[in-house]
Amino acid sequence: MHSPMNEPPVDAGLLSPVRAGAPVEHLVDDVAWLQAMLDAEVALVRAQSRLGTVPVAAAEAIARVAQASHFDVRELALSARSTANPIVGLVAALTAAVTQVDSDAAEYVHRGSTSQDIFDTAAMMVSKRALAVIREDLSRVGAGLAALAERHADTTMAGRTLAAQAVPTTFGLKAAGWRELVVSAEARIGHVFAHGLPVSLGGSAGTLGGYLEFARSGGPDRAKLDVASYVEQLTRLFAEECGLTCAPLPWHALRAPMADLAAALAFTTGALGKLAVDVLTLSRTEVAEAREPSAVGRGGSSAMPHKRNPVLSTMIRSASLQVPALATVLNQSLLSEDERSAGVWQSEWQVLRECLRLAGGAAHTAVELAHGLQPDPDRMRQNLELTNGQIVSERLAAALAPRLGKAAARKVMSEASAATAASGRPLAAVLGDDRLVTEALTAQELADLCAPEQYVGAASALVAAVLTPAGKD
Amino acid sequence: MHSPMNEPPVDAGLLSPVRAGAPVEHLVDDVAWLQAMLDAEVALVRAQSRLGTVPVAAAEAIARVAQASHFDVRELALSARSTANPIVGLVAALTAAVTQVDSDAAEYVHRGSTSQDIFDTAAMMVSKRALAVIREDLSRVGAGLAALAERHADTTMAGRTLAAQAVPTTFGLKAAGWRELVVSAEARIGHVFAHGLPVSLGGSAGTLGGYLEFARSGGPDRAKLDVASYVEQLTRLFAEECGLTCAPLPWHALRAPMADLAAALAFTTGALGKLAVDVLTLSRTEVAEAREPSAVGRGGSSAMPHKRNPVLSTMIRSASLQVPALATVLNQSLLSEDERSAGVWQSEWQVLRECLRLAGGAAHTAVELAHGLQPDPDRMRQNLELTNGQIVSERLAAALAPRLGKAAARKVMSEASAATAASGRPLAAVLGDDRLVTEALTAQELADLCAPEQYVGAASALVAAVLTPAGKD
Amino acid sequence: MHSPMNEPPVDAGLLSPVRAGAPVEHLVDDVAWLQAMLDAEVALVRAQSRLGTVPVAAAEAIARVAQASHFDVRELALSARSTANPIVGLVAALTAAVTQVDSDAAEYVHRGSTSQDIFDTAAMMVSKRALAVIREDLSRVGAGLAALAERHADTTMAGRTLAAQAVPTTFGLKAAGWRELVVSAEARIGHVFAHGLPVSLGGSAGTLGGYLEFARSGGPDRAKLDVASYVEQLTRLFAEECGLTCAPLPWHALRAPMADLAAALAFTTGALGKLAVDVLTLSRTEVAEAREPSAVGRGGSSAMPHKRNPVLSTMIRSASLQVPALATVLNQSLLSEDERSAGVWQSEWQVLRECLRLAGGAAHTAVELAHGLQPDPDRMRQNLELTNGQIVSERLAAALAPRLGKAAARKVMSEASAATAASGRPLAAVLGDDRLVTEALTAQELADLCAPEQYVGAASALVAAVLTPAGKD
Amino acid sequence: MHSPMNEPPVDAGLLSPVRAGAPVEHLVDDVAWLQAMLDAEVALVRAQSRLGTVPVAAAEAIARVAQASHFDVRELALSARSTANPIVGLVAALTAAVTQVDSDAAEYVHRGSTSQDIFDTAAMMVSKRALAVIREDLSRVGAGLAALAERHADTTMAGRTLAAQAVPTTFGLKAAGWRELVVSAEARIGHVFAHGLPVSLGGSAGTLGGYLEFARSGGPDRAKLDVASYVEQLTRLFAEECGLTCAPLPWHALRAPMADLAAALAFTTGALGKLAVDVLTLSRTEVAEAREPSAVGRGGSSAMPHKRNPVLSTMIRSASLQVPALATVLNQSLLSEDERSAGVWQSEWQVLRECLRLAGGAAHTAVELAHGLQPDPDRMRQNLELTNGQIVSERLAAALAPRLGKAAARKVMSEASAATAASGRPLAAVLGDDRLVTEALTAQELADLCAPEQYVGAASALVAAVLTPAGKD
Repeated sequence: MHSPMNEPPVDAGLLSPVRAGAPVEHLVDDVAWLQAMLDAEVALVRAQSRLGTVPVAAAEAIARVAQASHFDVRELALSARSTANPIVGLVAALTAAVTQVDSDAAEYVHRGSTSQDIFDTAAMMVSKRALAVIREDLSRVGAGLAALAERHADTTMAGRTLAAQAVPTTFGLKAAGWRELVVSAEARIGHVFAHGLPVSLGGSAGTLGGYLEFARSGGPDRAKLDVASYVEQLTRLFAEECGLTCAPLPWHALRAPMADLAAALAFTTGALGKLAVDVLTLSRTEVAEAREPSAVGRGGSSAMPHKRNPVLSTMIRSASLQVPALATVLNQSLLSEDERSAGVWQSEWQVLRECLRLAGGAAHTAVELAHGLQPDPDRMRQNLELTNGQIVSERLAAALAPRLGKAAARKVMSEASAATAASGRPLAAVLGDDRLVTEALTAQELADLCAPEQYVGAASALVAAVLTPAGKD
Repeated sequence: MHSPMNEPPVDAGLLSPVRAGAPVEHLVDDVAWLQAMLDAEVALVRAQSRLGTVPVAAAEAIARVAQASHFDVRELALSARSTANPIVGLVAALTAAVTQVDSDAAEYVHRGSTSQDIFDTAAMMVSKRALAVIREDLSRVGAGLAALAERHADTTMAGRTLAAQAVPTTFGLKAAGWRELVVSAEARIGHVFAHGLPVSLGGSAGTLGGYLEFARSGGPDRAKLDVASYVEQLTRLFAEECGLTCAPLPWHALRAPMADLAAALAFTTGALGKLAVDVLTLSRTEVAEAREPSAVGRGGSSAMPHKRNPVLSTMIRSASLQVPALATVLNQSLLSEDERSAGVWQSEWQVLRECLRLAGGAAHTAVELAHGLQPDPDRMRQNLELTNGQIVSERLAAALAPRLGKAAARKVMSEASAATAASGRPLAAVLGDDRLVTEALTAQELADLCAPEQYVGAASALVAAVLTPAGKD
Repeated sequence: MHSPMNEPPVDAGLLSPVRAGAPVEHLVDDVAWLQAMLDAEVALVRAQSRLGTVPVAAAEAIARVAQASHFDVRELALSARSTANPIVGLVAALTAAVTQVDSDAAEYVHRGSTSQDIFDTAAMMVSKRALAVIREDLSRVGAGLAALAERHADTTMAGRTLAAQAVPTTFGLKAAGWRELVVSAEARIGHVFAHGLPVSLGGSAGTLGGYLEFARSGGPDRAKLDVASYVEQLTRLFAEECGLTCAPLPWHALRAPMADLAAALAFTTGALGKLAVDVLTLSRTEVAEAREPSAVGRGGSSAMPHKRNPVLSTMIRSASLQVPALATVLNQSLLSEDERSAGVWQSEWQVLRECLRLAGGAAHTAVELAHGLQPDPDRMRQNLELTNGQIVSERLAAALAPRLGKAAARKVMSEASAATAASGRPLAAVLGDDRLVTEALTAQELADLCAPEQYVGAASALVAAVLTPAGKD
Repeated sequence: MHSPMNEPPVDAGLLSPVRAGAPVEHLVDDVAWLQAMLDAEVALVRAQSRLGTVPVAAAEAIARVAQASHFDVRELALSARSTANPIVGLVAALTAAVTQVDSDAAEYVHRGSTSQDIFDTAAMMVSKRALAVIREDLSRVGAGLAALAERHADTTMAGRTLAAQAVPTTFGLKAAGWRELVVSAEARIGHVFAHGLPVSLGGSAGTLGGYLEFARSGGPDRAKLDVASYVEQLTRLFAEECGLTCAPLPWHALRAPMADLAAALAFTTGALGKLAVDVLTLSRTEVAEAREPSAVGRGGSSAMPHKRNPVLSTMIRSASLQVPALATVLNQSLLSEDERSAGVWQSEWQVLRECLRLAGGAAHTAVELAHGLQPDPDRMRQNLELTNGQIVSERLAAALAPRLGKAAARKVMSEASAATAASGRPLAAVLGDDRLVTEALTAQELADLCAPEQYVGAASALVAAVLTPAGKD
């Protein structure tokens, strides 16, 4: 249409506002992946040089050349069609570039290696860089929500179940719940960050045969190479260079890291999505118990001058609706056949990027939401009056049960609730006319029991328990 | 990292070889979507001008300015964060651009409209352009497979069930099966192309209120506007300008078009994926009954000089593993609340693009596969010998049943099969030693029954039936 | 635990209220599948007898025995572990049962057939029986919604976008939208019902070899059998006996029928789910614009006497959240390798049942919801006042634009909206104080423009268009 | 059809052979869930009695009655339609049953509680019982695979990538890889078992208001109740009675436990699915490197006497294709709105059961597969010859590179491989004719380098490392 094939297509974020401009976006774009692939090549040759099977000078010559800006990412993408992965083309291009500066060093590019080692290691490096910012943003979201929870530990509002007002709760408890999920997400991301991102080092079919062959041919004495020790050292040094961990076995066809990333990222957008769906409900014109933070131009409509749309929640929710489905693809990659799959492996790449990008965008967006959310305690109090006191019917049934028996108490309350619903008279007034009730309770007791703000159970205690350091897991 | 935020991130296809360089890629990129949004604005104002509520000159002034190249797609993407969609920013930018050339015309930009009308209409235009090339490619895939089916209608090979050789079939029947799915996919894509891509025209909440208000204020006599007729005409003319259809009702929150696109695209990659998984099996070193078409440099490995990887099938399969999961998101968008959803709508966009892109890439890749696939009839014949004749055991059981009774026939065959499996003696020889068999069948009959190429059932007839024009649905 | 292994486990619907007791439940239970498998065996032998390759008496003897109640479904389920499908065990049990009454007839059980032919044909029969009741229920849902749409074509309510009141609409238009999706679902179900449910008839590997072999051995003259004609007739008669259609080719590994069923069923629960999520919103205590139909004991809470939970919508929504994910499994079964898959085929069965059961339960539940939903026009009107008139800000901007210019009009309205939001003064009053406005509009014009019930655009016309017969597709 | 509505529908496992008869089946059926609900009610009242707010005698009277066999599970399932969950009906039935034996005790049934507390706690108990057997089975699978890995640490076979032979590996390394995934699955299941299964105790909206109200009314001094302490104790004792853990907060709308269960179960079937897909490939007639354990009647076909189908792998794979999609539903339940969701909560139940059932069935099936799998080292060796030596081309390229330069070495090997592929001459022979090669390598060196069994890299070392205790994580 507008572009010849050798121009890269454009994905500037037009279709994904949740991540447009978020820091994660450039951390996972094609240039970042390309750089990570180059970083993996460098890490490998450096690890080999530390073991003496590659000259240090060669390793450093390669490292100097291995800059993404020296390569044409579109050309590499197109060349990947010949081999179903971009590494073959990249190795050729890198070798050519190194040859230009040091033809001896070129011999050592990608030595003994295989496409999947480089690609998967790069994927883990990209993931690590993205998880770092996601984790930090989750931490900031958690802090914002903790502040809300603390500030509003006693702010009474209607608890809602199955879309209807149920019993009173506090906004603090609600915020503490959001925070709890975010803290859990942070923990899951943190676990993957620390333990779930291994280098890939297996060679063509997971035996490291090529690495060993080159080590032998490069070293002084072919027969003397201690295989177990060399492999252990090479993997460890490679991991060290990459800032990644070591897997128990080469994982070309053992895709646990993908499944674990998928689970943690889907948990993350789910946790943030819970916050978003609740804010959307609280923002409804008829509810109006919270507003998103305002900013110049934010939330406007192309047609309606009065609109203030809850756009942060909208964007977060959009991510939370996508990631679980995408995560399925990464989980299913456990079914990789043979020593390397023809197609399962390749199905992961774009999906992993998208999961990282959406989770990163959602977390970034949630920072502002969590820190700027504006609850409206006055409106919460007004809304508590909407049922004319029925919102405490559970409490009265509980209070009357020991006096009247559970069944009789429930009957009294059902009838009183129905009378209130039909007439609009306050429940307290209806009950005040009921002999059974007035015989069981004094007027003051009845008034106290009917006060919504006095029926928030353990809300404050629960908030306090999770916000104190010992309450943290 | 390497780029300031206002640079667009790069997605050059590095992580998705199946679509890198395929025609669909640029048809669905951000620039293409932007152009479609502009096309939708132009189509709307032209439709309004044809109804006399906007001056023709204004419509044409807007049309002249509405070129994607005049706008900064990254800036629009970033601005979309303020409103959770890119249209508000685009309308502002378009209005400013039109003002530069014709300030009167600027009054008519996006008149009476709403973001979702423009965005969804653009999504349908983008989809239409992509479906057109997908359909064409599917047609070419089907033709290639039909040729294979015809040429090999009688080429005997092992039919395989639950991973084991079962009874003989023909390669032609296999190819006809692949084609059948592809033809079905083409039909489903064709149906959506012709009937499933409506313009979106509802105004702020699906009542077209804004359009009507402007029509009244722009027209001569406020009271005289025939609402039903105006709405019907405006929708029809807008659809005409866009090359799209009319929906029964504004569909901001009635997402049938998304669900239907999802179903057709997932069917398409599934159909192509069936071809891919079968070619992968036939390509296995131990099976070797078919090879992908060769091309310079294709299928190479970064480490193994001898490798000829089935990369076309690998790429197609990678798409077929992603699209069904993505399609779930589009299907779930049916659960859009209210008159416009906060988050569900926004979850569709990138996912729809990805489905189109992967289906388009897979179809494009399959054209070459279908036309260049190289079956190896000699190897097929050799593989038919691998079971030493057991592959026809079903037939002999069937032939013996009327003579010996079903149970006895099955017993004879089970024992003979076991003997063959244990000894490696051909089944025909084992059976030739069995009195029950030699009393029931002449030597010639036995020999005929044991010939795999004579036990392909209705394979040829089935192929002929689906390849003749009347066999097409 | 409580049951020895040979007792069937219990699934009485305890975990799936949406379908507990719905007619579909028994139509798709194991006994129904078993009966369908037996029906398929009978249909096959009858088709063979109509072609003269099986004695009519044998066919009828088999038919008499083929009653599910004669077989132990648990035993068959357990036996299926030996073969990864229940047909091998069933054929043995059926043969034994037929032998008891007519040992000659036993020779003709499952003659030339294969497990998948019987199983898949049974799956299609079960699906057909379930789709018939689903379609009928959808039709009743559509009728209920049409009545609502007609009755409330002019009942004004707030249109809501991104969770906030946007502009007025009518409840009739909302109901018409729900109906439109349901009508579309009915059409998609109807299409699959009529065209998408073929018999499976391929024999061991899709060549019908076994059927032909038996036909030859059973018939008078081996050489004379016209393969194409026999296969065509056998398929057609089998389909006739089953009440199903004929597929272009045996579809053991061409799973289009599964993908199509999945798409139609996911569309159906999505369509019903849209109704459910909207009813849930309208039911909210703070919105209260509609109530679910009441029934004795319905909607009660175990703790809160006053609660009237919207349980019908809740149950429908629960189905709509499950089916799209389940449908993915059925769609992915297109990737069936070889002539019969080892595992993909088997992954479909329970999932298909669940999709049918949930869609059937949701449709059944929606009948009552659609016919009994109680909108509250008074409350709708009250809620329209909540924004103090801002809900018509779009209209005023449109009306003022031709007089003041679009930008100026928008500025006036933004400021007026802000003033209303801050002060609570009605928008009409705020505007009445604005010289720019009073110069442009008379007091009467301003009053008219500010009346929400006069700004419902084409709502009535749209409702009328889709409810009149010509409006139906 | 065949059953009146008040008969429970039958699900005897006919459509799900992978779990038919597995121990997990009865652990998760409706009767088991019902018992767990009753267990939860008993645990609650016992916890309350330990805190002195309920008489011990009442608690024990309730415990005596709370047997699933006393209740009609179908009736409860049908009653659940009135309230969208089965607990309201169960509480009524339990209260009635307790009343029969001790009318005072009946006052204390479900005291202060809410449906979701009981249901979710029951779900966790059911999950715990199921996870216990799954974990045990995984442990047995791991042991079987460890034995295979150890026994075959040096059994050379072809490593396969992208469906083609790549370089040699060992069967031991392959088995060690399968085991690694299974060990990882066991660890993930173990983590959820120990930390991820909390009681649910929140009361109507997560504040525990009802529990506190009853505690006050039942205790001596209303004012004196220490809320924080009572809530902490009640939760702890309830968890103790249930054998479950305590969550940081009531989790009615914080569905982390569901997401974590989903992730662990999908990982489990994925790990087992990897084993299954590999066994299926190794079982192929043309590969024949491994056979499933045989058993009387297992693997038979309804039509083909010679067939030995890999039914264990087939069944396991069928589970691994279902669970990831189902898990999506459980993950998406994080998006539960308000204090309790209308529909999201209800969407979890059947799906959770199905995930547990499929994972349990797959694990159970895999025990037999892992312990009985029969690798065929002879056939592995024969298959290594299929490429006429090309399988070691990588090694020779590596060995020649230091002598000839990487590019020249690769050229030599590409040409030699092509010559071998074209002529069928062994690669060693072709290379033996090449002056460049014979100048670089002695005949013995060449022969050694061409021996596949000498090119298994670190396979043995890797196996040893993961099988020694220190290698375990």
